[in-house]
Amino acid sequence: MEDIIKIVIALGGNALQDKTKPPTAAEQLEVVRMTCETLAGISCKGFEIAIVHGNGPQVGRIMLASEYAKDLTPAMPFDVCGAMSQGYIGYHIQQCLRQALKKKCHDVPVTTIITQVVVDENDEAFKHPRKPIGPFYNKEEADGIAGEKGYVMKEDAGRGWRRVVASPIPIRIVEVDTIGRLWKSTIVIMCGGGGIPVVEDGIGGYHGIAAVIDKDLAAERLAEEMGAHVLLILTEVDKVAINFNKPDQKDLDRISCEEAKQYMEEGHFAPGSMLPKVKAAVMFAESKPGRKSIITSLYNAEDALEGLNGTLIYAKES
Amino acid sequence: MEDIIKIVIALGGNALQDKTKPPTAAEQLEVVRMTCETLAGISCKGFEIAIVHGNGPQVGRIMLASEYAKDLTPAMPFDVCGAMSQGYIGYHIQQCLRQALKKKCHDVPVTTIITQVVVDENDEAFKHPRKPIGPFYNKEEADGIAGEKGYVMKEDAGRGWRRVVASPIPIRIVEVDTIGRLWKSTIVIMCGGGGIPVVEDGIGGYHGIAAVIDKDLAAERLAEEMGAHVLLILTEVDKVAINFNKPDQKDLDRISCEEAKQYMEEGHFAPGSMLPKVKAAVMFAESKPGRKSIITSLYNAEDALEGLNGTLIYAKES
Repeated sequence: MEDIIKIVIALGGNALQDKTKPPTAAEQLEVVRMTCETLAGISCKGFEIAIVHGNGPQVGRIMLASEYAKDLTPAMPFDVCGAMSQGYIGYHIQQCLRQALKKKCHDVPVTTIITQVVVDENDEAFKHPRKPIGPFYNKEEADGIAGEKGYVMKEDAGRGWRRVVASPIPIRIVEVDTIGRLWKSTIVIMCGGGGIPVVEDGIGGYHGIAAVIDKDLAAERLAEEMGAHVLLILTEVDKVAINFNKPDQKDLDRISCEEAKQYMEEGHFAPGSMLPKVKAAVMFAESKPGRKSIITSLYNAEDALEGLNGTLIYAKES
Repeated sequence: MEDIIKIVIALGGNALQDKTKPPTAAEQLEVVRMTCETLAGISCKGFEIAIVHGNGPQVGRIMLASEYAKDLTPAMPFDVCGAMSQGYIGYHIQQCLRQALKKKCHDVPVTTIITQVVVDENDEAFKHPRKPIGPFYNKEEADGIAGEKGYVMKEDAGRGWRRVVASPIPIRIVEVDTIGRLWKSTIVIMCGGGGIPVVEDGIGGYHGIAAVIDKDLAAERLAEEMGAHVLLILTEVDKVAINFNKPDQKDLDRISCEEAKQYMEEGHFAPGSMLPKVKAAVMFAESKPGRKSIITSLYNAEDALEGLNGTLIYAKES
């Protein structure tokens, strides 16, 4: 008998919110409801799944509200805003996914686990923070904040000044032992937004820091630690492409990790967009023989698992 | 060999925040750190514990910020604010408790589960909403909001007008199947703030509503559904008292459910304060022979479990 295939699914922003509509909770719930039809479809085919999701726009809005109201009630630090976004998004996914599953095939528990992800304080990324978070300020306000709080502030594409934080590599998922106990019976939503970034405090514990962990890299970590078979990264495009958005764009069906690395070196993939996805995909495919990664759109996810769509990233047998 | 004793612990607001200090995340973390020393002490004695916590001030502040910033970013509905508060508070507890446990005796997984709690749409409480939530408004603003959104607004003790919502009885914990799988290996934090209130949508799912579930009643529900032996309700006082704050105040060491009911009828316990705690305690003690409830302070929790402090509520053997 074959093992049941375990899949870690990383959901992009478009699986949570329609950019053409107002970013309300009600609109998120509608999009999540549709996303969960797809996720339920995958589960109902007999795959064991775990869900990781992004949180960029959501945590940005939580932080914006928190900073704006700071004279009324203390502003929350970035790690806490991340924890809040995990609660917000996880709640919607667990509510919709369970219902979709019940309707489609079976009543399976679905649960969100608040997740801390350990990063290394000495990660090179902390020397060059470049991930913008939170509200925009004018130059004067930005200088004031930099002086008062020690934040690094940068001008963001002519739109104003924003705080930038590091995007370090995820090293370890603190709550991974919990998913180990749940995986077989329960669909777990975890590492939301890449996880709440924490560093070791030197006395056996952790403390939260302001940083952004790439959610695809966190999903890769989770997939490795859980011994998953497939890392399924869902995004807006059906396939990874080289020469993206150029006349000679070429969509890729299957690429080896070697080819993927060459394309990365040649600069085919945009940093902060396709690049971290391909990186995560290669890392997972190379982590153990037989593991593979797929990058595709939410819409084509089920087809892609049958090899009918998407881009498969695989390691050549040595 | 005796069974391991399972305890559901309900934490009051003072276990999370020091009212004399600013309500910042950093101050919460400090209080939670101390609270977790006590919780770790209980776990290290060999009891199996699960944690339920309040969220009143936290969800109030999340909602305040969200409403205040509503022209910049859409305000979040109350169920989502509750989910966010579970993420916020759960994150702090799981971070501090694991560290306290590691230092004191053992490295046990600690995890927060985002929790939905089902209430009945036809609960009498919905006819008389009286739990104030969110910011204060003046009369004119309040009338505007009532007209626009259909909220029930009430004058709150001379401090202004606030929205009031119902406080219905918790019927069922949606994610209870998850804790069933984790209980023996993992300390679970769940039903934060009494849980996110949801009602059945008639097509196999749930949707969130604006309501406040009493966290002690939610803890009681959890304790029953988990087959716990003890419901331990931690609050600001060491013991339940009759004639509270009067010259003839009498602290109670042990009371039967019958005595407790009589004191409730006589009006000894303040609604919204000691009354729901005693109610929850009686409900649990009566739910099955051998179950007992304890109400005491965080400080005396360990002593109370050995019968050295606190108020024990027990059912007379029939």
